[in-house]
Amino acid sequence: MKVAIMGYGTVGSGVAQVIDTHNDVIAKRSGGVTLDVARILDLRDFPGDRHEAAFTKDFNDILNDPDIMVVAETMGGINPAFDFTMKLLKAGKSVVTSNKELVAQKGLELLAAAKENGVNYLFEASVGGGIPIIRPMSQCLAANHIEGIAGILNGTTNFILTRMIEDDMSFEDALSLAQKNGYAEKDPTADIEGHDACRKVCILASLAFGKHVYPSQVETEGISNITLEDVSYIHSANGVIKLLGQIKYIDENNIAAFVSPAVVYNGSQLASVRDVFNAILVRGDAVGDVCFYGRGAGKLPTASAVVADMVDCAKHVDRRKVFGWGAGEEDYVIDHNSRLEMPFYVRAKLSESEVLGMFSDVKFLSRKGQPSDEVAFITDSMTRESLIKALGGSKVLNIIRVTNY
Amino acid sequence: MKVAIMGYGTVGSGVAQVIDTHNDVIAKRSGGVTLDVARILDLRDFPGDRHEAAFTKDFNDILNDPDIMVVAETMGGINPAFDFTMKLLKAGKSVVTSNKELVAQKGLELLAAAKENGVNYLFEASVGGGIPIIRPMSQCLAANHIEGIAGILNGTTNFILTRMIEDDMSFEDALSLAQKNGYAEKDPTADIEGHDACRKVCILASLAFGKHVYPSQVETEGISNITLEDVSYIHSANGVIKLLGQIKYIDENNIAAFVSPAVVYNGSQLASVRDVFNAILVRGDAVGDVCFYGRGAGKLPTASAVVADMVDCAKHVDRRKVFGWGAGEEDYVIDHNSRLEMPFYVRAKLSESEVLGMFSDVKFLSRKGQPSDEVAFITDSMTRESLIKALGGSKVLNIIRVTNY
Repeated sequence: MKVAIMGYGTVGSGVAQVIDTHNDVIAKRSGGVTLDVARILDLRDFPGDRHEAAFTKDFNDILNDPDIMVVAETMGGINPAFDFTMKLLKAGKSVVTSNKELVAQKGLELLAAAKENGVNYLFEASVGGGIPIIRPMSQCLAANHIEGIAGILNGTTNFILTRMIEDDMSFEDALSLAQKNGYAEKDPTADIEGHDACRKVCILASLAFGKHVYPSQVETEGISNITLEDVSYIHSANGVIKLLGQIKYIDENNIAAFVSPAVVYNGSQLASVRDVFNAILVRGDAVGDVCFYGRGAGKLPTASAVVADMVDCAKHVDRRKVFGWGAGEEDYVIDHNSRLEMPFYVRAKLSESEVLGMFSDVKFLSRKGQPSDEVAFITDSMTRESLIKALGGSKVLNIIRVTNY
Repeated sequence: MKVAIMGYGTVGSGVAQVIDTHNDVIAKRSGGVTLDVARILDLRDFPGDRHEAAFTKDFNDILNDPDIMVVAETMGGINPAFDFTMKLLKAGKSVVTSNKELVAQKGLELLAAAKENGVNYLFEASVGGGIPIIRPMSQCLAANHIEGIAGILNGTTNFILTRMIEDDMSFEDALSLAQKNGYAEKDPTADIEGHDACRKVCILASLAFGKHVYPSQVETEGISNITLEDVSYIHSANGVIKLLGQIKYIDENNIAAFVSPAVVYNGSQLASVRDVFNAILVRGDAVGDVCFYGRGAGKLPTASAVVADMVDCAKHVDRRKVFGWGAGEEDYVIDHNSRLEMPFYVRAKLSESEVLGMFSDVKFLSRKGQPSDEVAFITDSMTRESLIKALGGSKVLNIIRVTNY
């Protein structure tokens, strides 16, 4: 079957490579379908590329080719990816993507367009790279009420935190190392401030609970204010700090969703996820906790998920999958700071007796070289709002949520 | 949609319960389909059961009901499950099952019958209970050459090994505790001798490489000869002993497949899988290692996977999924003992100098209370055949494979 790729960057060129080298196994798993890269859209030139003859700078070459029924969008960003995808869906072509930004911002409209036009819009690669999560969640866990999801959704920040935890490296040094290894971009903001994880939270939440969640609805805090002092205190509590995306079912009309550093106790499957690996833990009422682990990024892992979606579309080209979500109400995502109770890790310039005057039940932590005017403790379960109120005007150095995953 | 359940034991009654309590979410995820338990086949009586009116002792009540298009087979065993399933498929009904024994022994014939009759035979629940693995492997990893699979596939043995590792409990005491907790049957043979894991290896291998593998082709060794001495030596090597099902791609015409205790080094995702949890690690050439973790057994986890398969059938009642495998040649599964090279853990009544006379490169291990005439070591990579030859007539106390997962 003729297919097209839009955007020949890391993922797009990986898609071509995976197709070239896997058509034997693709045919075996799909009842005989093979993929043929008929067109590649990119404004750049790739002289000498194996697919040189397929390149075009004109989107219409794909849109107007009636033989191309499946298109991989690996351009990234909202524009022109949104416009192109919409036109393709309206033209009766299925589109698959790794573009998390587009799905998080425009998934509702694109899924609606796919439905109207009897085609598929799939995005397995948009969360967790090559880790199967979208399809397992929508199909295998279909007979579960999802209670919550917690995920290590960004490899760059997990690499940085791992180096801080295991090698006592400062945040700055770990970030430099990540950049040197090619795990972090020159401008690492989207990763370290949690924006990348936030987009994935939106996609997971939309899929799990059937209503679109936008990035602006998800409070997002990155890891740039995590210090080695925090790492050390939390180590003494038998835990580690991870950047988690968390989603919690509240009721039929409300969920909570946020991205923030979180204390994960050792023994949790999330605690042992190291370096650039990702993991997504889904808690279902029937199945309990299931966890999906693997490389959350990278050329070939991500490309292999894109190609798997293309195969799925090619197998079902005459038929749309039941898949998607609707619109959420404005207050669908609750203010978790005032409503969700959980324990918190607090580091502050306070004495133990001052802390005991504020909280009835805390667990004090210690670290090597702890100054006499610094205290760290884990509170009982409470809202962040009550925590801030109890702390009053105290000089707080850091506050980190403690997760129950 | 009207559905039937055959076998109202733990899983079958769980299936009814999950349907009863999840039709809201099932409808949401399937575009409006709900399931209605119209018939339950069981020879026993269940007076007062919520589904009392649905019970029948006559299989024909299901076979001959044209409204029942999807049937869950949760009877277990080969007979009469095989006969019933075959008749249902031939009658144009889709069947889903948690019956690993039947899939491992008769999957080839049943999948062929499903294909011939344009219906589905699905078995997500047969491996890993509620953990999504069958569908992710066949769909999400479709664009990968699978290089190997390693799984902790049996919760009972993993519970026993965890108690031995963490609590210094003997095998016998840990088995008793497992029985007391309801994790092990009165006759625990199928679990502790690895037969249960073996069936799951057959299903995973058949699915991953497209040719049916039978239990008789999979060398299977249980955990009953693992001692606390072995646990302690391997702890000193920074590893743990797990009962692993392992599958390895050799070439287009051959795979290796076996079940045995294995040394897993800490840091592997499989090492941190504790108690009754299961995990399946799949190594793909594009995606790298992905790992699926969760409860591998239990009433509701397993039932939720059965119901998810029923939902999938109900959504696609007019259409068969491309799914299945063919027959393998007689020598398809190789003799791994003579052909696969790996390191081995050996415990023997030997001196270190005797060992150094036999092997050029070994790593000696130690334990508290180690007798002066006992030695334990990890060899270089070699076949088991060469290992046995090198050990000659030595008094060997245990040999355990070291895995590279």
